[in-house]
Amino acid sequence: MSKAALTRSHIIQQAAGVFNRLGYAGTSMADLMAATGLKKGGIYNHFASKDDLAFAAFDYLFDWMQQRYSEALQGRLSARDRLIAVVETAYASHEDPLLQGGCPLLNTAIESDDTHAGLRQRVRVAMDRWRTMVAKIVRYGQKNDELLASLDPDEVATVLIATMEGSVMMSKLYGDRTHLIHARNHLLRYIDTLCETA
Amino acid sequence: MSKAALTRSHIIQQAAGVFNRLGYAGTSMADLMAATGLKKGGIYNHFASKDDLAFAAFDYLFDWMQQRYSEALQGRLSARDRLIAVVETAYASHEDPLLQGGCPLLNTAIESDDTHAGLRQRVRVAMDRWRTMVAKIVRYGQKNDELLASLDPDEVATVLIATMEGSVMMSKLYGDRTHLIHARNHLLRYIDTLCETA
Repeated sequence: MSKAALTRSHIIQQAAGVFNRLGYAGTSMADLMAATGLKKGGIYNHFASKDDLAFAAFDYLFDWMQQRYSEALQGRLSARDRLIAVVETAYASHEDPLLQGGCPLLNTAIESDDTHAGLRQRVRVAMDRWRTMVAKIVRYGQKNDELLASLDPDEVATVLIATMEGSVMMSKLYGDRTHLIHARNHLLRYIDTLCETA
Repeated sequence: MSKAALTRSHIIQQAAGVFNRLGYAGTSMADLMAATGLKKGGIYNHFASKDDLAFAAFDYLFDWMQQRYSEALQGRLSARDRLIAVVETAYASHEDPLLQGGCPLLNTAIESDDTHAGLRQRVRVAMDRWRTMVAKIVRYGQKNDELLASLDPDEVATVLIATMEGSVMMSKLYGDRTHLIHARNHLLRYIDTLCETA
């Protein structure tokens, strides 16, 4: 990596944590300067605007999450095991310091839905990928007669993602992992009810 | 009501919608002036600070929600009917223009958890009340042998609230009520599984 590429990558990584904790509107140039150790010019040398940096920071966190899902799904062959891996990975991710500010999809969705069409579009694409991943697992399980044919794959995706995201919000609000654990236990039982042999 | 009380009430109502849509950090004095039709001095005549107004606006929306729950629960005697009323009321509230910006608990939790201890505390108290309302219904149903004795009332509260809030986030993100409907249908089936006769 060139020095410029290294600096750009350093800025993105540091800014990602700051945006995720403080929000887009709540992050000032001073916050970004403090986190990166760079002056304003040093940051804008690499990014055309605050938006440009915010997009790169969001993509960085989402790529990191996708990587974790991809690793967790490796070698998991049954639909049931794959759905369990999705739930376990979602919750395990929140133990990583990178997601100290919570889930970037949730945070950015809430902030951008009425205010920032560019960021909202970014989150929609990311959420589409997450929903598609879950729905594909359900369809695969239905094809293999492992999951109930009566299931609506899109509904399963909404239920899994909504429950996980809502419980992340509650645990962050209270600084108490109990809500994550309750929701995880509920979802593992829910996954069992999706199976033909349940 | 005195003229001062009427003006104060008008400011709170208008500001509540703005804060809920744009967020606390995302709301400027210009936004508040445009929404209320008042000058800065006219607003600060009634509120000591932006925080002071934000607290009053949050309380206004939460009181409105509590009122809706209270009305919906009237005459609902069984625990099952009461839990259904909670779910139906949560989703029905989002058809009211007042909640155009989404759920104030969710929005304020996400924004304040890492940034604004005063607002976060306000949301914690509100969330405590919501959780307590659900847990009390579960305990009442257990006492009457209507709901399974094995249930953890706090877990039921987390599952209901997390699923509802996560689906509100998804529906707002896409501008698509499908996610609300999927989550609602799931929760109605979930409530059935809590019953002794399920």
